[in-house]
Amino acid sequence: MENAFSDRITDVPKSFIREILKVTIDSSIISFAGGLPNRLFFPVKALQKAAFDVFEEAGAEILQYANSEGYLGLRQFIADRYRKQEGLEIPVEDILITTGSQQGLDLLGKTFLNEGDDLIIEEPGYLGAIQAFAMYRPRFHPVPVSEGGMDTAALGRVLSERQPKLLYTVTNFQNPSGVSYSDDNRRAVADLLRGSSCLIIQDDPYGDLRFSGSRKISFKHLLPANTVLLGSFSKTVAPAMRLGWLVAPPLIMDKLVIAKQASDLHTDYLAQRILHRYLCDNDLDAHIAAIIRQYGKQKEAMIGAIKDFFPAGVQHTNPEGGMFLWVTLPEGTSSMALFEAAIKKKVAFVPGTPFYVDRKDSNTLRLNFSCSDEPTIVEGIRRLGDSIKALF
Amino acid sequence: MENAFSDRITDVPKSFIREILKVTIDSSIISFAGGLPNRLFFPVKALQKAAFDVFEEAGAEILQYANSEGYLGLRQFIADRYRKQEGLEIPVEDILITTGSQQGLDLLGKTFLNEGDDLIIEEPGYLGAIQAFAMYRPRFHPVPVSEGGMDTAALGRVLSERQPKLLYTVTNFQNPSGVSYSDDNRRAVADLLRGSSCLIIQDDPYGDLRFSGSRKISFKHLLPANTVLLGSFSKTVAPAMRLGWLVAPPLIMDKLVIAKQASDLHTDYLAQRILHRYLCDNDLDAHIAAIIRQYGKQKEAMIGAIKDFFPAGVQHTNPEGGMFLWVTLPEGTSSMALFEAAIKKKVAFVPGTPFYVDRKDSNTLRLNFSCSDEPTIVEGIRRLGDSIKALF
Repeated sequence: MENAFSDRITDVPKSFIREILKVTIDSSIISFAGGLPNRLFFPVKALQKAAFDVFEEAGAEILQYANSEGYLGLRQFIADRYRKQEGLEIPVEDILITTGSQQGLDLLGKTFLNEGDDLIIEEPGYLGAIQAFAMYRPRFHPVPVSEGGMDTAALGRVLSERQPKLLYTVTNFQNPSGVSYSDDNRRAVADLLRGSSCLIIQDDPYGDLRFSGSRKISFKHLLPANTVLLGSFSKTVAPAMRLGWLVAPPLIMDKLVIAKQASDLHTDYLAQRILHRYLCDNDLDAHIAAIIRQYGKQKEAMIGAIKDFFPAGVQHTNPEGGMFLWVTLPEGTSSMALFEAAIKKKVAFVPGTPFYVDRKDSNTLRLNFSCSDEPTIVEGIRRLGDSIKALF
Repeated sequence: MENAFSDRITDVPKSFIREILKVTIDSSIISFAGGLPNRLFFPVKALQKAAFDVFEEAGAEILQYANSEGYLGLRQFIADRYRKQEGLEIPVEDILITTGSQQGLDLLGKTFLNEGDDLIIEEPGYLGAIQAFAMYRPRFHPVPVSEGGMDTAALGRVLSERQPKLLYTVTNFQNPSGVSYSDDNRRAVADLLRGSSCLIIQDDPYGDLRFSGSRKISFKHLLPANTVLLGSFSKTVAPAMRLGWLVAPPLIMDKLVIAKQASDLHTDYLAQRILHRYLCDNDLDAHIAAIIRQYGKQKEAMIGAIKDFFPAGVQHTNPEGGMFLWVTLPEGTSSMALFEAAIKKKVAFVPGTPFYVDRKDSNTLRLNFSCSDEPTIVEGIRRLGDSIKALF
């Protein structure tokens, strides 16, 4: 049977994070490994009411097949929000509702990538994007990111040697590293790409979750014709419904809709209608403000505990938002070895390795701070600090 | 920009059916063109209650990220139903919940097809399957189907010349033709495939909608290790939620789950929980019986009107279930020309052309009978008969 499979699926290794998450089911383990939003903030009662009301108002219509582009009301809400928050004028026709923003990545791979095409990815980079694009067998060109943004010298080298079709970036509070691109860095990246045929995919699942600092400029302002935006309600409302979106100009949208029809015809229409009713009847910004207050406190608790419990020589990012921070151990230290040691002390994280396209080990790790309360974070970081010290 | 796209997406023409459906928005047109289940049978109140109850019982849990395989309770319901209805013992681990069965097709393409791989498709065949598989650029080998099933002589020829990886079939009340495979035909197809590495994909969205005749044997009985089953709640409960499933043995399932994660992580978990609550609290078989009674009457009305109003020399299928029947005009007659003429008489259908992988025109057409009441069907068929006579 093995040789019956496609090359693309045969090449993909079993998900490392999946295996890790199995270990963390043990409830005595404090886990910073997950990537989940905190369920305490899911608007259960408000969504229950929205579901009831939308059945009451719209009846059978919300249960029928719907169009591939998505519910117009929801797309209008997204367009209005771009105008209000970022001063971007996005026509509703340029918005496609996707089955989570993960599907946005798959549709972009389907629409753009031939085998061997060049694609720029951040290093470290978002694992879900690596997995989605890998199915179309591109050649990955990792470009380092760190506090402040992308390494523009490294980007310039790739652009001088190759003709990448796509550049994938999470510019705000990136998963896994928590780093954000400064305005200057965004302008420098845009300057390098201007005139090339490379399309920027700006994925922004965490952009609304900002604790400090100020909103940065969108690539859609800097390179409007060459930018595709991805967004998601998973971190601001709830992930179960798989509701994300994609913004692209008409020429690209025509192709994306064909790919969407071939992939799942359309995104759950009942879910779109429930979410839209919720958004009309509730104050999303007030809801997000409550999430930010708590996540911000949890991040501060984690940063404080790191200062208290980690030995000298361990570096970490200090994100202005989002759900993750990134730890760099001294050169040559194995985060895989640390993982084994940490599990024995009942604390878990994700070693950095899967966030690189070409490494077997690394001296980096990802810590999630959205899902644990402050005392748990302090205790977990204390345990992790002990594990690091024992390893040295 | 055009040369930036992938080869797969550049090759796919704009959906013909989409264009047709735009024409039929005119409410004075009687449309047999759609492929929708009848919304009169959507269980609006029962799903509204199921949604309310599941929020009440399970709270935040139903709004969190969930596993890629799907909700265990829903998979257990599907396994139990296979046992009860078909005497099939399917382990729940062999069941994957998909974002509509359209996604099942995409995941199979992703998991099995390299460019140029051989794939057997029915002729005429399901358009959604042709679209999904076309994204992976296989070589299509159409094998004719007609009343009673697949042309086994033609199938034998393909199998002697090529080594197809997949055979895609809709064995019950096929879309577009309404034909079903007899037990003898299924056995003959299985005999031809036995010992080959070709996998049968048995897609059965309409199997529960049987008006007459008796249930036929599943390929899962005949070739258990080489059969993948696809199923859907779209025609029995409602399509908006995009809930389908796929049954495959463990070795294949491992790969499909990787493809699923890359495609959309998991199917809407809230929708899975709502549907599961609905299925636990309601009698699905009684609900389906009501649908069958009405669809059966509508099919009879269509067959009767065809006999009354169509000229001699026009052939048609007489399906034992499902939503469609298939009309064959005399050799050389253009169903595209008939479409133009019929629209002027305010009646629409889908010309057969898009259901073949390699034709520009055809003498066949698909008629949907699930969405129009009996008087409307009679009037529409009268208008269509007039259009056919005018064309001769």
